Amino acid sequence: MSAFALDTRLAADTIPVGNLDLSALRLMTDQRFPWTVLVPRRAAIRELFELTRADRALLMDEIAGVSEALARLTGAHKMNVAALGNQVAQLHVHIVARTEGDAAWPNAIWGKGAPEPYPPGKAEAFAAALAKALNLAPNANSL
Amino acid sequence: MSAFALDTRLAADTIPVGNLDLSALRLMTDQRFPWTVLVPRRAAIRELFELTRADRALLMDEIAGVSEALARLTGAHKMNVAALGNQVAQLHVHIVARTEGDAAWPNAIWGKGAPEPYPPGKAEAFAAALAKALNLAPNANSL
Repeated sequence: MSAFALDTRLAADTIPVGNLDLSALRLMTDQRFPWTVLVPRRAAIRELFELTRADRALLMDEIAGVSEALARLTGAHKMNVAALGNQVAQLHVHIVARTEGDAAWPNAIWGKGAPEPYPPGKAEAFAAALAKALNLAPNANSL
Repeated sequence: MSAFALDTRLAADTIPVGNLDLSALRLMTDQRFPWTVLVPRRAAIRELFELTRADRALLMDEIAGVSEALARLTGAHKMNVAALGNQVAQLHVHIVARTEGDAAWPNAIWGKGAPEPYPPGKAEAFAAALAKALNLAPNANSL
């Protein structure tokens, strides 16, 4: 069994927030949306149903915890949660805070326009605020 | 506390497959994609984190079960699972079987082109096959 390693494209598009019990939590570096990704630290998993039942329950808890923290932190109107994986096979769950009038509202965000980088330091500050809201260790320790 | 009632737009866009322990399972009447929707039968819930922890665990089991059955039934290459709710507020989870070369591949399906109705009887036959794969009671009994 191979060890878990974060997909290189996910790594390139995100910065670390911190590690939850099961998943690495990452922030997409696209300032158009408060957009996080949970990546279960399990090797060679593509589908939710390939996780053990215990891991799936843990992932659901992590989805709920991150969604609620992100909603509170951003004041967003709706949370979007999705495991797609058509382009990056490694199982990852998008959790996106949506607000009426945002760059894709009311449509789904995927494939809509180009990512907009955060100004220097802003993504890191947002990741730190989210880690704090979730009582996570500083993100330097995460994957 | 009000009783659960299926959102009218979800009702119009789908036919019943059957009831699982928590959720009504429905088939979207769009033959471009094998596309189901799980709707937890709980009133006034918009977000996953508004469900109780027990209901969330049950929903995750139902997502995994339906995904695996749909993957096996269709031979699809990738399952897409998403709770969006930007246009229909009632909590519902899309479970879509994706295949390389389908009408939206490798992009997300939402907002891509217009739905294509099934030929007469085909949606009902597919719903019945899925209900059988999941050991559900005949869909006439479902919501």
